[in-house]
Amino acid sequence: MRGSKLKAILVIGDGMADRPVKELKWKTPLEAAHKPSLNQIAKTGICGIMDIIAPGAPPGSDTATLALLGYDPLKVYSGRGALEAVGSGIDVLLGDIAFRCNFATVNKDFVVLDRRAGRIANEEAAKLAKSLQKVKLEKPFVKFLFKNTIQHRAALVIRGPKLSTAVSDSDPEKVGEKVLEIKPLDNSPEAKFTAKILNELVRKFHDVLKEHSVNKARVKKGLPPANMILCRGAGTVPNIKTLSEIYGIKTACIAAASLIRGVCKVAGMKLINVRGATGTPQTDFMAKAKAAIQAAKTYDFTLLHVKAPDVASHDGNIEQKIELIEKIDSMLGYMLNNLDLDSTYLAVTADHTTSLLTGKHEGDSVPIAVTGPYVRSDDVKEFDERSCAKGGLNRIRGIDLMPILMNLLGKTRKFGA
Amino acid sequence: MRGSKLKAILVIGDGMADRPVKELKWKTPLEAAHKPSLNQIAKTGICGIMDIIAPGAPPGSDTATLALLGYDPLKVYSGRGALEAVGSGIDVLLGDIAFRCNFATVNKDFVVLDRRAGRIANEEAAKLAKSLQKVKLEKPFVKFLFKNTIQHRAALVIRGPKLSTAVSDSDPEKVGEKVLEIKPLDNSPEAKFTAKILNELVRKFHDVLKEHSVNKARVKKGLPPANMILCRGAGTVPNIKTLSEIYGIKTACIAAASLIRGVCKVAGMKLINVRGATGTPQTDFMAKAKAAIQAAKTYDFTLLHVKAPDVASHDGNIEQKIELIEKIDSMLGYMLNNLDLDSTYLAVTADHTTSLLTGKHEGDSVPIAVTGPYVRSDDVKEFDERSCAKGGLNRIRGIDLMPILMNLLGKTRKFGA
Repeated sequence: MRGSKLKAILVIGDGMADRPVKELKWKTPLEAAHKPSLNQIAKTGICGIMDIIAPGAPPGSDTATLALLGYDPLKVYSGRGALEAVGSGIDVLLGDIAFRCNFATVNKDFVVLDRRAGRIANEEAAKLAKSLQKVKLEKPFVKFLFKNTIQHRAALVIRGPKLSTAVSDSDPEKVGEKVLEIKPLDNSPEAKFTAKILNELVRKFHDVLKEHSVNKARVKKGLPPANMILCRGAGTVPNIKTLSEIYGIKTACIAAASLIRGVCKVAGMKLINVRGATGTPQTDFMAKAKAAIQAAKTYDFTLLHVKAPDVASHDGNIEQKIELIEKIDSMLGYMLNNLDLDSTYLAVTADHTTSLLTGKHEGDSVPIAVTGPYVRSDDVKEFDERSCAKGGLNRIRGIDLMPILMNLLGKTRKFGA
Repeated sequence: MRGSKLKAILVIGDGMADRPVKELKWKTPLEAAHKPSLNQIAKTGICGIMDIIAPGAPPGSDTATLALLGYDPLKVYSGRGALEAVGSGIDVLLGDIAFRCNFATVNKDFVVLDRRAGRIANEEAAKLAKSLQKVKLEKPFVKFLFKNTIQHRAALVIRGPKLSTAVSDSDPEKVGEKVLEIKPLDNSPEAKFTAKILNELVRKFHDVLKEHSVNKARVKKGLPPANMILCRGAGTVPNIKTLSEIYGIKTACIAAASLIRGVCKVAGMKLINVRGATGTPQTDFMAKAKAAIQAAKTYDFTLLHVKAPDVASHDGNIEQKIELIEKIDSMLGYMLNNLDLDSTYLAVTADHTTSLLTGKHEGDSVPIAVTGPYVRSDDVKEFDERSCAKGGLNRIRGIDLMPILMNLLGKTRKFGA
């Protein structure tokens, strides 16, 4: 039973962990949800709590995914923009500067009215993005690529000689504040030049968007027009070894969110596209489960990421968060019934706590459970933040998980003799 | 309820943790004490054990406090002397060399008879210190500042060009041994010069002290004369960011012990003076509680330090240690009754284990409990070393605590996107 036959699937419920919620009689959503399959994984497996980055440190979904894949985000993370762009299918080269963007709504004084342009639909955003790609820059030797991803999300890549990531954001990150001028963050000519290019783009994008037929139609329907592109998180692609290079394994990623796809792509993972997987609460959970079962036939390690609970948490929607946890539970139930559990490890966790109350990523630890052959199962019977704290894994860090899974798969190398 | 309204108070019982004690039927003092309020914090909060520095590593009270404020003492600690001096109100500048000193009793052969000169009273020590400040050095371009702090404790600061911390202690740290000559610890002219200055000072201090009327009166009363200054822990002030710079918070310190005050001052905390807070077992616990409650109205984070249990532990006084723990418990009871617990986090811990048996700081972990809004409370019902080990925090490090508290206060920044 040792060796190449063993597989592992890691299921990540984005922002699934939470704090006790008053409306749930001080239970967390995980504690309040009906979740027989999550509990079965906890019951048959080894459990613990995990500080994705460090105790008290709120992770982003990108740094969290890097950590969960075994990379130290404090060492390798180089901004969200490039990862998002890679994940949305843009080829980001070393030297390119990439930004995470939002379609947003501003008034005529450039005050932000809606940072997500009413969570504009993918189809509309695609039409707008297509028009934006036609903008001409004053300096013809600088190229840019603009691509919408999910809803209001988009990526912008700047390619050319002598660019720098040392530029500020245009996104004020708050409704009611003005769009910021992008400024160089150091005195280099590269930073000044990059800021200039970006301000030119932002201005020209606005000119195109405000006159666009998609937006005129939105205004008629009483919807906020997507008349501004907010940029943030200038970055480059991290220069890391792939999981295949590190562990000698074949790896796959099932995720709809561009940012997660980007991280996985950079880690050398095969991106598996699943019809109906949208990164929204309406995603097709069962399609993802089936894709993961299929992937586990070929790939040693498969990451299955579900964005939905994070969305519900950011929105403060208690009922929806519980409902989505229960859908993840059903998805896991299908996987438990259809995987060969004698040769497959199934791990489940959250990439961070997203508080329904604050609507933010928090630095609280997350629960982790790993079931599969020969794990040292413990007494934990339920998968939630407090039950798992009593588990056999005790308290680990995010970057510990991948070596633990690879060790179970027999893919780690002895250090010493 | 999120945001700037949330406050945190950290109560540190110095050396409060211990090992099982035979005379207590193998209970620890915390286990043996009547402590309803400590237990209430454990019961309503999240508990754990904490390695202040690292498992098995005995911390000093200075390195422990640095760690508990979130600073890595292995990186920033630069000796006790400077912290003690800062805490006693001496302005220590970058470049100054500071020492921790004791008034001690020696015989005519300079053999130490009492390292604490019978724990000389503050008033007598102040008179002696005033006389010592009049000593003239051969090199007039070197200045010194000498100040008594609590009882036998004092601080000495040397200011001048070309000084070095690379000098040995004069304190043999043992009764029955001779006062040591201070030696340079490297071959630099600075170290040699600093050692020379110090030996000159120690000699001249002794000449003043042995003839001093305070000491003559002590001898008449059968008390050990404070006829020697023992120096140790040459250091400079650590070059660290303040807590305000790191977290954007207002912070306050309620502590009588100079060393703790020094650490807090260096961390940018407001030192709140409390009438009756003495750093001794006779300190006014209730005055400290009231000051902390008052501080929490203004300051985001307040540290309340109680030196007393450490003193009892060093003295091997079992009954007194239990009694002091019970006084801390009453102090916490008053705080629980008078704080707004819907918006205030109350954390309690020890800065290290001080063993009644060995009389020393030990490297055993310490219990930690945090109560307040939305914490993931656990099943722990009692605040002691063994009960807390079963808590939801599991095992953390000292430097983890501050990020955990700041995360609860909403003062940590997301890393990543």
